[in-house]
Amino acid sequence: MTPEEKLAELGLELPAAGEAVGSYIGASLSGPLVFLSGHGPQRDGEYHYRGKVGRDLDVATAQQAAELVILNLLTSLKAEVGELARVRRIHKLLVLVNSDPEFTEQHKVAEGASRVLLAAFGDEVGKHARAAIGVATLPLGISVEIEGIVEVAG
Amino acid sequence: MTPEEKLAELGLELPAAGEAVGSYIGASLSGPLVFLSGHGPQRDGEYHYRGKVGRDLDVATAQQAAELVILNLLTSLKAEVGELARVRRIHKLLVLVNSDPEFTEQHKVAEGASRVLLAAFGDEVGKHARAAIGVATLPLGISVEIEGIVEVAG
Amino acid sequence: MTPEEKLAELGLELPAAGEAVGSYIGASLSGPLVFLSGHGPQRDGEYHYRGKVGRDLDVATAQQAAELVILNLLTSLKAEVGELARVRRIHKLLVLVNSDPEFTEQHKVAEGASRVLLAAFGDEVGKHARAAIGVATLPLGISVEIEGIVEVAG
Repeated sequence: MTPEEKLAELGLELPAAGEAVGSYIGASLSGPLVFLSGHGPQRDGEYHYRGKVGRDLDVATAQQAAELVILNLLTSLKAEVGELARVRRIHKLLVLVNSDPEFTEQHKVAEGASRVLLAAFGDEVGKHARAAIGVATLPLGISVEIEGIVEVAG
Repeated sequence: MTPEEKLAELGLELPAAGEAVGSYIGASLSGPLVFLSGHGPQRDGEYHYRGKVGRDLDVATAQQAAELVILNLLTSLKAEVGELARVRRIHKLLVLVNSDPEFTEQHKVAEGASRVLLAAFGDEVGKHARAAIGVATLPLGISVEIEGIVEVAG
Repeated sequence: MTPEEKLAELGLELPAAGEAVGSYIGASLSGPLVFLSGHGPQRDGEYHYRGKVGRDLDVATAQQAAELVILNLLTSLKAEVGELARVRRIHKLLVLVNSDPEFTEQHKVAEGASRVLLAAFGDEVGKHARAAIGVATLPLGISVEIEGIVEVAG
């Protein structure tokens, strides 16, 4: 099964690409490495799950936000490389959680993204290094933003 | 025209390198990739544009800060690779905006940096992936800090 | 002397690896580059130095936290590549300091990590690009988190 088919089996659909909110692109390819922009929880041209986790959203809702964010990141990745089957390894995620200053479960929020990658790509390709942090605020008030580094076949 | 000439045409001057505020360097080269340190809005040995965006600075002023930051980053890049014409691609920026917790226009602040890159390097070389986020505070109280990954010719 | 021997001479011991707080790994290898996860100040299975710098911890204590964090990062690096002598260059650190919003000495906190790298690897291999920033909060309330990019011999 391709990653796309595995996502479909889980009931997960890649959203249509959102419009960049500025003069940048979703992904940039350097040899086998793809550098992916910070993505947000966009679907149908709108950003969902706004607010601060630990104040406006709970962990379970923020995990749903992280799931939608990683699907947006995969949309940009697919647009850059054609087919997700070309991915050789997810290397690194930086998971930014718009947080109440006393909220300390960013690592649980990040699981919403990591689990999608492991399900879509399997353990060998999908396992990745990760940093999850709590930031003061994010563009447009979104609750989760994720950037990443991925390796693809030549 | 070289990137340096395009910057001059826009009235933009690369600042003399500031002193690192610690035991680190401005750029590190790995094959064709250059990893650039977090830079601040330094000129003439001083950091300008201090404070939190949305509280002490408005968006337009913060865009000027971002413009000065990216010029500092280009100063470090040029010091590492000799001539900016060696740049093959700007791949990735991480734009950190010292933000009031309710400020949500970090993507607009980042435009101050992205526009300089597109003007200096043109669309093919200058277009880049980007993440803009709002952080609680930054070293020395600067309003904007930017790090980046760039590819240069061998 | 190997980096491990230099660390021992300084009285610094690599902690046993902590358990990942989620579905991720400590390091991911892409050709000569190692992408290292965000690490915290873990020893003996516990996270130490919790709280916000500038409110709960002072700079000197946070530097100790940064020192323990970078040792954890080296533990993951060694697990991935076998021997620290294989390191050809430390390229980049992102140092995240859990900060009171008015604390502005993140660069001094980061020195606790940078100095260990320079001592263990020497100037040529250990010198690195770096960004230090102040974040609103971190997972489990830790005071310092560091991620990195390192190059190793083939």
